[in-house]
Amino acid sequence: MKQKSFAEMPCSIARTLEVIGPWWSILIIRDAFMGSRRFRDFERSLGIAKNTLTKRLKLLVDGGLLDKVPASDGSKYVEYQLTEKGRDLFPVMLALTQWGDKWAAHENGRTFVIVDERSGEEIARQQVRDTNGALIPADQIGLRPAMGRLGESAVQD
Amino acid sequence: MKQKSFAEMPCSIARTLEVIGPWWSILIIRDAFMGSRRFRDFERSLGIAKNTLTKRLKLLVDGGLLDKVPASDGSKYVEYQLTEKGRDLFPVMLALTQWGDKWAAHENGRTFVIVDERSGEEIARQQVRDTNGALIPADQIGLRPAMGRLGESAVQD
Repeated sequence: MKQKSFAEMPCSIARTLEVIGPWWSILIIRDAFMGSRRFRDFERSLGIAKNTLTKRLKLLVDGGLLDKVPASDGSKYVEYQLTEKGRDLFPVMLALTQWGDKWAAHENGRTFVIVDERSGEEIARQQVRDTNGALIPADQIGLRPAMGRLGESAVQD
Repeated sequence: MKQKSFAEMPCSIARTLEVIGPWWSILIIRDAFMGSRRFRDFERSLGIAKNTLTKRLKLLVDGGLLDKVPASDGSKYVEYQLTEKGRDLFPVMLALTQWGDKWAAHENGRTFVIVDERSGEEIARQQVRDTNGALIPADQIGLRPAMGRLGESAVQD
């Protein structure tokens, strides 16, 4: 399962993949966003072996994405909660969800929808916008080398 | 390297991970967004063995994310270009990049920046917005079960 480490690559995408860890970790983070807090919640949702889940939760705690905290109801259980670093992955979750809803939908439909609680309406597909909320046309978005390492600059279309 | 398949899970996130394939595939797609088109471009950027790269490119072509097309200069080379399905991953790339720039930056800085070509300015951190571009506050974003499978509804904070 161990793959080549991305940690020494300077690219932010590679480094993010290194911090998040294997694909499975994304599903643990998804469950945390949906309210899972205890070991058994994650276990039930993911259907994986206890020792595997233990290792994966430890990786996410070590990576600073989840914190181990005392149980919210005063019981002896440990709970896992997203750190600020973990919560900041919400845009990644949202982008994966919206891509999957469009391109990889299950024949029986979706498991969840992401809504604006104020209206109950589903959140629209996100588009790239400036700080004022104005759309940036796809053909005006470019990738520029920041350190002279890359030779190409434009998003292809 | 083979991990348990996410293909039969109904969740859009799991299904997306299944289509994209292993983490490495994201870096191939990143390179395609940056203008890589030929085998040797990807090989040079990623520094991986030819047979490994061949397998990974095939997975992405089979998954409908890349198309194999004749060389743009009329030479005998095959080129790879992002399909619409592949280009639609741009929001995932952007979200990974912005998370990595904030939480996993390399000590020597970034390799690329994503800019608005009209101004040359870096694209701001994306926030969740409605179709009119108005911000949706983080505490008003909820995840609701779509098929009665999930018990929790709110994004934690």
